[in-house]
Amino acid sequence: MAATKACSVLITGANRGLGLEMVKQMMEAPQPVRQLFACCRDPEGPKAENLRNLAKKHPKIITVIRLDATDPCSIKESAQRVGSLLGKEGLNMLVNNAGVLAHGTIQTTSSEDMQSAFNTNVMGPMNIIKEFLPYLQTAAKASGKPGMSCSKAAVINISSALASMALVEASYSFFPAVSYRVSKAGLNMLTMCTVEEFKKDEILFANLHPGWVRTDMGGEGGEIDAPESVEGLLRVMKSLTEKQNGTFMDYKGSVLPF
Amino acid sequence: MAATKACSVLITGANRGLGLEMVKQMMEAPQPVRQLFACCRDPEGPKAENLRNLAKKHPKIITVIRLDATDPCSIKESAQRVGSLLGKEGLNMLVNNAGVLAHGTIQTTSSEDMQSAFNTNVMGPMNIIKEFLPYLQTAAKASGKPGMSCSKAAVINISSALASMALVEASYSFFPAVSYRVSKAGLNMLTMCTVEEFKKDEILFANLHPGWVRTDMGGEGGEIDAPESVEGLLRVMKSLTEKQNGTFMDYKGSVLPF
Repeated sequence: MAATKACSVLITGANRGLGLEMVKQMMEAPQPVRQLFACCRDPEGPKAENLRNLAKKHPKIITVIRLDATDPCSIKESAQRVGSLLGKEGLNMLVNNAGVLAHGTIQTTSSEDMQSAFNTNVMGPMNIIKEFLPYLQTAAKASGKPGMSCSKAAVINISSALASMALVEASYSFFPAVSYRVSKAGLNMLTMCTVEEFKKDEILFANLHPGWVRTDMGGEGGEIDAPESVEGLLRVMKSLTEKQNGTFMDYKGSVLPF
Repeated sequence: MAATKACSVLITGANRGLGLEMVKQMMEAPQPVRQLFACCRDPEGPKAENLRNLAKKHPKIITVIRLDATDPCSIKESAQRVGSLLGKEGLNMLVNNAGVLAHGTIQTTSSEDMQSAFNTNVMGPMNIIKEFLPYLQTAAKASGKPGMSCSKAAVINISSALASMALVEASYSFFPAVSYRVSKAGLNMLTMCTVEEFKKDEILFANLHPGWVRTDMGGEGGEIDAPESVEGLLRVMKSLTEKQNGTFMDYKGSVLPF
């Protein structure tokens, strides 16, 4: 992945699904990343076995980091650890991939589902961006390149077409997922706020929709497999410049309406 | 206000600002509403004095109801009370007006601000819609009229232009209000979900932007006063039909981008 050539990258929710596939593909690329911080809630647990095996194969590049997006202390600790391992070039790309999805209509969605989605899908990325911001700023300054790109300094928020107000009508009847839609619309707004606030730092922000993927989250009804989604996502990341700052785009590179 | 001719209306946050002004103008209209449930957190407190005085002037029409949008029990209780007072015609219009606004950028917004905005501006309207839904359904059935309107059965969510992803760039530098923007974007999405879920019930839903109003919330820098905003809002409400179901519109009737 040329986009992350000699780059340092951090991915949350890296132990399975899209996150794990991103780690895989970044390592298989002709020019793999220099440092890859693969974050997950429970690095020692059974759900992180595949990630641990990958890390064992690439011990100089992959570091598995404990990060629970719902726990501000865990985010702070992970930032301190990553900071101690990063070079003077800072962190080039942060991928907020960790997320939760609960099914349910307005009438069947509980307050707990709403709260959980908000905590993981909105507060998580917000707190993570805040804590890792200094490293992204360092990377932007260290790059010496004009403009914006994922190989300079970028935050990719994994959003969803389900967050598009304009597209609710097309999918609500078979995939209501109210708590998820509300949280991802909030995440999209968060992205737009970061775009304005950190323009001066030349940090790029984007909302990417991975497609409907057959993962634990997407379910068996998904339309594509994780490898196809991630190939597309990495291609899109590579293509992003300051012109796409704040874009809402799918894994094929098509712009989505908010 | 012909829109609410002989109608029953419920307004949250009715003790001050836009909510209080709505109550006033609905009572001053040539054809005032039949029943007006004016809800606020503390009906006996000092901040509800103006509302209490209004209610004393119109004891047959205005009922002041205790409703705290952040408290599911209080919402349930208010729905039971309103249900006991409503006629067979049900509730024609629910105005989710109660809301909170905290200032702050990404870097200065606390988790508490984010949580508070989410609780009041998203969870509040969601729980209120759930509890009052049966009365809205009753009103839609009782109307005997085809189509949708605010005099039949409608939920008006007071949103904000600050919730528009497309308009963040225009206002972020002088009015970041991250927690408010994120919550109101979530509210807009909630509205779109309710549009799909309750189409079959012929209940209309809309997101309305009141303008930047000189109230306790909007501050002294606002562009218009509450009477002008509410005159516009009531005019817009009156104009809404099934064609505007799910619209995001300002008090002048201009459609806003999501």
